[in-house]
Order: sequence, then structure tokens, then C-alpha cells
Amino acid sequence: MPPFAASPTIELMHQHASVRSYSEEPVPEDHVRAIVSAAQRAATSSNLQTWTAIAVTQADLRRELSELCGNQAHVAAAPLVIVWCADLHRLEQVCEIRGYSQVSEYTENFMVAVVDTGIAAQNGALAAESLGLGTCYIGAIRNDPEAVMDLLGMPRLTFPVVGMTIGWPLARPAPKPRLPIDAVLHWNQYRSTDVALLLHEYDRTMIASGIYNGRQVPVPGREGELEDYGWLEHSARRVSQAHRVGLGDALRQQGFTLR
Amino acid sequence: MPPFAASPTIELMHQHASVRSYSEEPVPEDHVRAIVSAAQRAATSSNLQTWTAIAVTQADLRRELSELCGNQAHVAAAPLVIVWCADLHRLEQVCEIRGYSQVSEYTENFMVAVVDTGIAAQNGALAAESLGLGTCYIGAIRNDPEAVMDLLGMPRLTFPVVGMTIGWPLARPAPKPRLPIDAVLHWNQYRSTDVALLLHEYDRTMIASGIYNGRQVPVPGREGELEDYGWLEHSARRVSQAHRVGLGDALRQQGFTLR
Repeated sequence: MPPFAASPTIELMHQHASVRSYSEEPVPEDHVRAIVSAAQRAATSSNLQTWTAIAVTQADLRRELSELCGNQAHVAAAPLVIVWCADLHRLEQVCEIRGYSQVSEYTENFMVAVVDTGIAAQNGALAAESLGLGTCYIGAIRNDPEAVMDLLGMPRLTFPVVGMTIGWPLARPAPKPRLPIDAVLHWNQYRSTDVALLLHEYDRTMIASGIYNGRQVPVPGREGELEDYGWLEHSARRVSQAHRVGLGDALRQQGFTLR
Repeated sequence: MPPFAASPTIELMHQHASVRSYSEEPVPEDHVRAIVSAAQRAATSSNLQTWTAIAVTQADLRRELSELCGNQAHVAAAPLVIVWCADLHRLEQVCEIRGYSQVSEYTENFMVAVVDTGIAAQNGALAAESLGLGTCYIGAIRNDPEAVMDLLGMPRLTFPVVGMTIGWPLARPAPKPRLPIDAVLHWNQYRSTDVALLLHEYDRTMIASGIYNGRQVPVPGREGELEDYGWLEHSARRVSQAHRVGLGDALRQQGFTLR
């Protein structure tokens, strides 16, 4: 805990680390309902509630999801996977009941649904952790969204935003260090000038944490020299490659035309 | 509280309601840091931390923000507004340091940043509430994103996703009823068939809560007849109109080309 104002909920947040190994014990239905009910209590734009949680408990579905998510073993092994979905389909039903027709083709329509889904999912994650469960977000649910939607019977104007494995942890990893707070917290104006120093500071923290197993890489522009592989190199490699390039097309297929 | 598994954190979530009237007492800096530090502890895709919080405390900036957010009085009156931003600009700096060049033109690149921003913002909101503060999300920060970015000096590859007013509440509204849980929680397969019944049930709950002040509207297709205005009519009207149609263009201007 950093030396700021504290509360039991903030302490719980500071214990968060993604869990990827779970016991076989199922998550009781009242726990699933507590998680999704807590997600519902989060703020939602204009009370439109533009998201849906699909609780996947069937082993065969979890196995198929695992294959669709880069073969992550914990997706098949966790007793529960929640797929948090953007959902404007429900509002399509609302419009039909009242004789209106929904505008859904603008980027804003998609954005509202995605932001609400992220907000809801995080209340859900923290609610689960407050009950002693472990969680892990699965961005790879977007690796092959068409196949996921097909598997879960998802209609037009819905989209899988993030997956989440949930279960009773066999092991709890230590929380990972994060960027120095002043790299992400700006006061009144965005400021880039002194961020480079903080990025280097974080690189050293991450290297010292042992997360990269002492791996070494060539120094850019200095032939033959080696240096520690750290968060800077790791992240630069990650974002210099294209991922999930079909996502935009998959969204458009679902009716989110991002105009 | 519904009759599901409970914890103090879940109880805190169930007390959430948006606060729009605040005392003039400032939010101490250690509280702001506690909020953003808690946001940092939330999960973040590949530990890339693709968001930034701009804490707006200067009265003149808050007044201007208020005008840009549909003249919402609490944006000017709250002692603190946090603008939660998607941020790939920081990773641009990381790539420069290590000699890589970032891929950022795909919808996925934007999506990762927006989801991470929503997740972080919700930890921040709940952390604030756990300290006795009130919060209100401001989607209207996206009404005129170019002007907001100009006001806060935001560079390319950043974008204001949601605003949030934070302060000491003068009044705490009662939490708003949400959809019956079975309208948003699906098991193993998305299911639309019985949702209409649940939507009508929620409509009656919302009407009974007095939220719409007993307003009446014509019954669709039955001339001269009136019925209660409820969540169905309210939401159908809301989503049958286009909002923030310039958002896609503003994003593309910032480098998020949504390919």
C-alpha cells in the first residue's frame, strides 16, 4: 500500500493479481449472481445498461473458448468464465416494444457500450475478489470474435469485449509493480516532458522484480553490447506488432459500423 | 442488497448512486493519489497501462469543462474533475526509447485502451466512494472532444473517454433500480426469448420508483389513449436519436483510425 488515504476496499484493490490456477470446486450460483448484481450497481450511461454477462460453466464450452483464446489452459480449467459483452441488442428490443428505431451506427454508440462493459466488469472482478475468488481478464476473447459469438449464440449488436476466468485460487501471485503514479496522473494539463525519466525508473523496478528472468537483449545502435530486457523493450515489441486486425470488420458485421 | 453472497466491498457497490451536489471542501491530494493509485491496481491488458488520469482542480478549467459538457453545473462546482483518457501516447515514447514504431491504427488498439480506461476509472470511482466521497461519471466529456483535448493540452494518441466529478456529497441520492438480473445474466448461451417480460417488469419498477414524476405519453398505435412514461419509452427515445456523431472523426484526428 502506498502512503495515501486508505480503506478496506482500497486494500482489497491493492491485493489484486491475475490468477491463472484454480481448484476444481465450482463457483456457487449465488456467488455468480452476487458478481453480476454488483456489476449492475456500477454507473451506466443514461441508465441504458448496454452490456450483458454470459456465465460459461459448461466444460465443453470452456474447452472450446480456451482454444479460441490462444489455448490458455485456465480458460478450460476455471469453473467459471464470464464473457462481458457490449449489448445494444436489448435496446433494439426496447425500441421494437415502443415503436422506435435505434441509431447504432456511430462510433459513440459502440463507445458507450464498451465503456459501460469495462466499468461493469471491474465491479464484477472486485466483487469476486471480495468473496475470496481469483480472477483473470481475457483480452484474447477478441482473437476470433466471430467464433466466440457463434459458440455462445450471440445476436447482432452484441460483442464480446473481455472474458474473465473466475474460481478458487490454488496460488495467489504477488501484485505486479505499476508505473510510478506521476506517469499516469497529470494535474490540470497533460504533461509529457518528465515522463521518460519515470518510464526508465519503472523499467528498473520491473527488471529488479525478476519478472523477465534476467533475460538480456542487444543495446539499440551499439553492436555487441547487451543490456537487461525490461518493461520498455517488452512493451515496445508488443505494440510494434499488429494484433487482432480483423476486429473492426467483426464489429461492422455485428452492426457496429463505427461511423 | 439482493439475497446473494455478500462482502463489505459488495455492500459499498450497492450504495452507489451518482452525486451531483458537492460541498466546496477540496479533495485532499492524498485522496486523489489514493484514487489513481487504486485505479492503477486494476488489471491492464499485457501490463501496457494504456490510460491517463487528468485531475482538474483549477476553477477556470472546471468552468470551461462544464460548458463543454452540456453546462452541467456540478462539473464547475465539484472541487475535482478527473478526465480518464485512453493513452497510447506514452507507448509512443516507449517505442522511441527502444527504437520501435507503434502500430495504432487498428480498432483493437483503440479498444484495448478504452477498456483499460473504463476498468481503471471504476476502481477509481469505488476507491473514492470508499473514502466517503461522491462521484458522477460524465459521458458528456465526449460532446466536443477536440475542445476538451485543446483545453487540457492532450497530445496525439490520447482521447478523453469519461469524465468524473468527485467531491464531498451534500446529498446522497438513493440507488436507482436496475434491470432484473436475469435480463443481463445469461448462462452458457445468449438468450433473448424471455427478456421482453423482464423489460416490462423493469418498466413498472422504474415507474413505481417515481423517477419520471408520473408523466404520461400516448400509447403507440392507440389514438387518444395515455399510459405511464417509463424506462422503455425513455430509453427508446434516447437511443433513437443520434448523439456525438463527430466522435469517429475526432478519434481519427487523434491517430485512432479504427481500421
